[in-house]
Amino acid sequence: MAEDPWTSRKRAFLRRLERERRQGRVDEDIVPLLRAINALDDYYTTSSCSGRIQVVAAEFPGDKWNMVTLAKWHRPVEPEEVVTVVRHVDYPNLWFSMQPPILHVICRTPAAAIRLVKLARASGFKRAGLQGARKNRYPVEIMGTERIETPLRLSGVWVVREEALPLLVRAANMLLVRSKERIERLRRAIEALAAEAP
Amino acid sequence: MAEDPWTSRKRAFLRRLERERRQGRVDEDIVPLLRAINALDDYYTTSSCSGRIQVVAAEFPGDKWNMVTLAKWHRPVEPEEVVTVVRHVDYPNLWFSMQPPILHVICRTPAAAIRLVKLARASGFKRAGLQGARKNRYPVEIMGTERIETPLRLSGVWVVREEALPLLVRAANMLLVRSKERIERLRRAIEALAAEAP
Repeated sequence: MAEDPWTSRKRAFLRRLERERRQGRVDEDIVPLLRAINALDDYYTTSSCSGRIQVVAAEFPGDKWNMVTLAKWHRPVEPEEVVTVVRHVDYPNLWFSMQPPILHVICRTPAAAIRLVKLARASGFKRAGLQGARKNRYPVEIMGTERIETPLRLSGVWVVREEALPLLVRAANMLLVRSKERIERLRRAIEALAAEAP
Repeated sequence: MAEDPWTSRKRAFLRRLERERRQGRVDEDIVPLLRAINALDDYYTTSSCSGRIQVVAAEFPGDKWNMVTLAKWHRPVEPEEVVTVVRHVDYPNLWFSMQPPILHVICRTPAAAIRLVKLARASGFKRAGLQGARKNRYPVEIMGTERIETPLRLSGVWVVREEALPLLVRAANMLLVRSKERIERLRRAIEALAAEAP
């Protein structure tokens, strides 16, 4: 008997996730959440990031088309690591940021999508919403709200005082750790949902 | 004949909007967009911000519960205005930020909600999504992506070099202006939708 399209698409995404995990391309901090979601019939995940600290060369934060990523870490960092990245580069504009977790989930029905959005928002992911509608494919984006976007250098001028860099890095580390806690909170909420399901 | 609940709720929100406008509590830059949305039968707006530059005292950006807003502007600012705000305060932690536009719209049907989400995303508001579902009330949040969240002071230590402050303010001003252009782009897209409607 032919598999229904939902099941084959879900299977393909789960295979891709396993392949990318073996290649070390998936942040392990978010894997338990991905597993909890993918264990439910009505959902599968298509992409994710558990939150990261990064240094990019760009005129503006979020300027995707003209951005060079110089370093990214999915874990707390030491100020020296940041210094090492920026010391010898001569881009005029450098931004240091803490990016919140982001997750994309395909849902089987609008009701399943809204259920997930509400769970995510109740777990602290206030930027969660249903973003489209195709037959049996309702894409939900789930994103944290807290971020840091601080210029380290603008037009060739250093912005952050050297003695304050450790404080900036510490703030980013604390937000990152808090984001990871939210991921765990959402995982527990999803598992409670699974336990309730008929 | 009794008015249907959708129409009376919409009427109440439109009245509130007009009242708040008269009190100067609505940013005029976003009024043409609100008008364009409210002119359509399937939508009404409940709250909005056209994007702003602000200075807050808080340990972390987005720490709503322990945050003191020292200043906010819905327009480009001069570096001196920022200096004036922070010079004499003694909070240990100060953040300077550019917050993107945000808009909440109630939609009559899921299809109307998804149509709006897609228009918003196509106009550059990538953080747009349907966030809930009650009978005849489908709330959509529309938000821009680009922001700045830079500490000015952390644990009592100044973070931003004095000579770089004008560059930071200029970057925030440029992002703010760009956000306002996106608001206009979305307004044009909504008006084109209205012209298409039967």
